[in-house]
Amino acid sequence: MTIQNRRVVMRQHPQGEVGAGDFEMQSAALPGLSDGDILVRNLYLSLDPYMRLRMRPGRSYQPPMQVGDIMPAQTVGEVIESRAASVPKGALVVARAGWQDYAAVPAASVRVIDAALGPVSTALGVLGMPGVTAHYGLLHLGRPKPGQTVVVSAASGAVGSIVGQIAKLKGCRAVGIAGGEKKCRYVVEELGFDACVDYRSPDFQKQLEAATPDRVDVDFENVGGMVMDAVLSRLNDYARVVLCGVISDYEAPIQDGARNAATNGVTRVRELLVNRASLQAFIISEHPEHWAPAFADLAQWLKEGKIKYREDIAQGLENAPAAFMKMLKGGNFGKQLVKLQ
Amino acid sequence: MTIQNRRVVMRQHPQGEVGAGDFEMQSAALPGLSDGDILVRNLYLSLDPYMRLRMRPGRSYQPPMQVGDIMPAQTVGEVIESRAASVPKGALVVARAGWQDYAAVPAASVRVIDAALGPVSTALGVLGMPGVTAHYGLLHLGRPKPGQTVVVSAASGAVGSIVGQIAKLKGCRAVGIAGGEKKCRYVVEELGFDACVDYRSPDFQKQLEAATPDRVDVDFENVGGMVMDAVLSRLNDYARVVLCGVISDYEAPIQDGARNAATNGVTRVRELLVNRASLQAFIISEHPEHWAPAFADLAQWLKEGKIKYREDIAQGLENAPAAFMKMLKGGNFGKQLVKLQ
Repeated sequence: MTIQNRRVVMRQHPQGEVGAGDFEMQSAALPGLSDGDILVRNLYLSLDPYMRLRMRPGRSYQPPMQVGDIMPAQTVGEVIESRAASVPKGALVVARAGWQDYAAVPAASVRVIDAALGPVSTALGVLGMPGVTAHYGLLHLGRPKPGQTVVVSAASGAVGSIVGQIAKLKGCRAVGIAGGEKKCRYVVEELGFDACVDYRSPDFQKQLEAATPDRVDVDFENVGGMVMDAVLSRLNDYARVVLCGVISDYEAPIQDGARNAATNGVTRVRELLVNRASLQAFIISEHPEHWAPAFADLAQWLKEGKIKYREDIAQGLENAPAAFMKMLKGGNFGKQLVKLQ
Repeated sequence: MTIQNRRVVMRQHPQGEVGAGDFEMQSAALPGLSDGDILVRNLYLSLDPYMRLRMRPGRSYQPPMQVGDIMPAQTVGEVIESRAASVPKGALVVARAGWQDYAAVPAASVRVIDAALGPVSTALGVLGMPGVTAHYGLLHLGRPKPGQTVVVSAASGAVGSIVGQIAKLKGCRAVGIAGGEKKCRYVVEELGFDACVDYRSPDFQKQLEAATPDRVDVDFENVGGMVMDAVLSRLNDYARVVLCGVISDYEAPIQDGARNAATNGVTRVRELLVNRASLQAFIISEHPEHWAPAFADLAQWLKEGKIKYREDIAQGLENAPAAFMKMLKGGNFGKQLVKLQ
């Protein structure tokens, strides 16, 4: 069987905001499978902010992408051919397949999913990396106690929405930060957060103060920049900052060498000092031991209707770059996916 | 016995850099002692950067100072009158006596020192709060392994000088950051650090890179601002930032409300993220359980000549404000003290 496969590669390193010209769609015949490999027909592609970080040159938690590399992504797909006994044809799997319609990958690299737990797309959201990120980051690093206040930025997003709902399940006050009235209303009315503050409001800082009368014990940080700055100004003694992402910075210009002190940044560090705060950055892929217990909780909560989720689905691989660019500007509403087939 | 006591109070909250007009020298007769109190004739006064933080209005780890409050400080002094059996007349004690020649304090609030361990002034330095701060922060929070690289700012100062020497004793590479060639030479030649970089050099960042060929595993941070920024750009995977102070920021203008994102600050946070770094801020007075083990180590090392220290001594209470202002600009060279009697 020879299949024409479409894939999206990075044509060049973006300068500042990502543009359509940074991507290139290619088409090629799929090579045959080696022993131990499976061929996956991708059904959904997950778009996540970390991909923009991968596109930056320079040091990071993985080697940066090279020009011509396929855009990285997790997909959920169906095995249409198998040369591995462990993953038979017909299985549904999550693979690190990248932005493409099909992928030949080692069977050992995929996670077989149970379609009875929910729609297959949830394997890229609440029952996937975003869900585990929320669970591990909040419970293991944030360690909120009942009655404490958890603030999470990008609160209507794939990770933030789960963070706040878990915080509520654990008896905390959950305060979201999101962009725009519509998202904020959803976060409070649908997801059950105690409050949600629109960072675009002229009086954002005042609204955040009003929403955190007992200050902030856990900052689950997805955004960075002025949003993080505002939250740090509300920290409690011994607050924990869970550093999951800094999407506000991923498109910033590349900088070299020494930089002058910025009063903003310095002030922020002083907030950490005076509150004897801690901060822990993490990448969930480095904590495989936490995946199984997180899935157990999340699947249970989902089944009991205690956790809700929302998806924003673009159609077709050809629309993945546009959906990605929109997401980086906060234009998505819920977990961003691309439906491929 | 009636004693005329001189003391220095905060006349007003400083605006930006501290000035002579922010202090006022007062003189008053000492009141009689209550049961359980002792009268201490202060011999040395310790000047430390945290005092500038205490002078700022707004939230901090202690309530901010009020106008008219005596300037806070630890002193070492001699008990000249006692109404407490536990601390007899003639004892040498460390007290939170503030900037004054004498102080009547509860006997339970002082630490009696053993003059056999070293000159009494060391009870305010290597065998006092700065020494314990260095020991706890580096070993308990920084947790350096042999062969790892420890960078410490304000490296010729009371805390930094001990941090680097302990790092060497533990088999680490110790890199200091200090202001000026003279201090840097002292840090390497006298204290035995592997390298010391002058943050005033035009090519500071490049020098820091050359001094940290294996990057940085522990940043013991006393300074903040562009100095911290430069160190963060050199972090290793899983680096630990020990946040002890941000002296570069203590004289910054007071700010209210939301601030715009500064690319500098945001970039710095990204450095924490991509290296999965952690940061822990601390105030040593909140860790009393660590004082005894730290003293045991430090006294031993001092006795064996494994730790050196340097003092910068101003003469007379009337010169304390000027010495304090000089210290905040990095003008001191070694632990800043004021000799009172």
